[in-house]
Amino acid sequence: MSATGGGDPDASALLHRLARRGWTIAVAESLTGGLLAATLVSVPGASALVRGGVVAYATDLKHRLLGVDDVLLATRGAVDPEVASQMAAGVRDRLAADVGLSTTGVAGPEPQDGQEVGTVYLGIRTPETSAVVPLLIGGKRDEIRSETVRRALAETLSRT
Amino acid sequence: MSATGGGDPDASALLHRLARRGWTIAVAESLTGGLLAATLVSVPGASALVRGGVVAYATDLKHRLLGVDDVLLATRGAVDPEVASQMAAGVRDRLAADVGLSTTGVAGPEPQDGQEVGTVYLGIRTPETSAVVPLLIGGKRDEIRSETVRRALAETLSRT
Repeated sequence: MSATGGGDPDASALLHRLARRGWTIAVAESLTGGLLAATLVSVPGASALVRGGVVAYATDLKHRLLGVDDVLLATRGAVDPEVASQMAAGVRDRLAADVGLSTTGVAGPEPQDGQEVGTVYLGIRTPETSAVVPLLIGGKRDEIRSETVRRALAETLSRT
Repeated sequence: MSATGGGDPDASALLHRLARRGWTIAVAESLTGGLLAATLVSVPGASALVRGGVVAYATDLKHRLLGVDDVLLATRGAVDPEVASQMAAGVRDRLAADVGLSTTGVAGPEPQDGQEVGTVYLGIRTPETSAVVPLLIGGKRDEIRSETVRRALAETLSRT
């Protein structure tokens, strides 16, 4: 990728690591709604490493586009660690990437599926590991989103 | 949707119009890389109207995830009015939305597929109309992206 720098520094750090590993990435987003993908592609040279993403904002799209088990979604709701895990696995598989990264959670302003505002789960799948990271993030809607993106990039960097 | 306002004003205007029409929306993004979806979901109450989106950053994903004709992609490249049109139709269909909106273009820093930096096509499909809007946008990478989002929201508002 480009050595000229630019774009979000956390995204740049992750993409440089991925370039060194020879790995591509794809993202599956719920509460971040496209912000994670947009942050990754803000880095010049991202096109060689970022396959793309799915914004599965409506719950049924998590099943339809990412293959998340629909019984799981019906019984536990969309804000759930296993849902995050399946979203990451689904986007990695369907977008033919080496790394799959997902976000699901409650940005507010209202609680959702019995979960409080700021409850977030990250799903991370690489060729070497699989992880779910639970977070509880304070702040307003936009702050919860941007902090989720920052943590998603950092947690993936630490596992690649 | 919520009457409390907040979020991006152009996105808010479009979502209020869609709510009045009883229409949902889904977006297919290439150069904007998730920024269009993120801008839409910045509006409180968006979840009732925004189905989700596909970030088909890699060219092959425009075929794989959105059903864009692969011969078209191979012969004309990804930055093309017919590609924009098929991306909008594909995301509308596959995400089961009333309105499909797409972006494809060259954010730079390098030209792509023989097209100069700032060349952008928007695809818009509603239950009533189908349109492709060609744009030529000046500025740097991030400015081209944000102006594409602004124009995409305005051009869709004027057709709904």
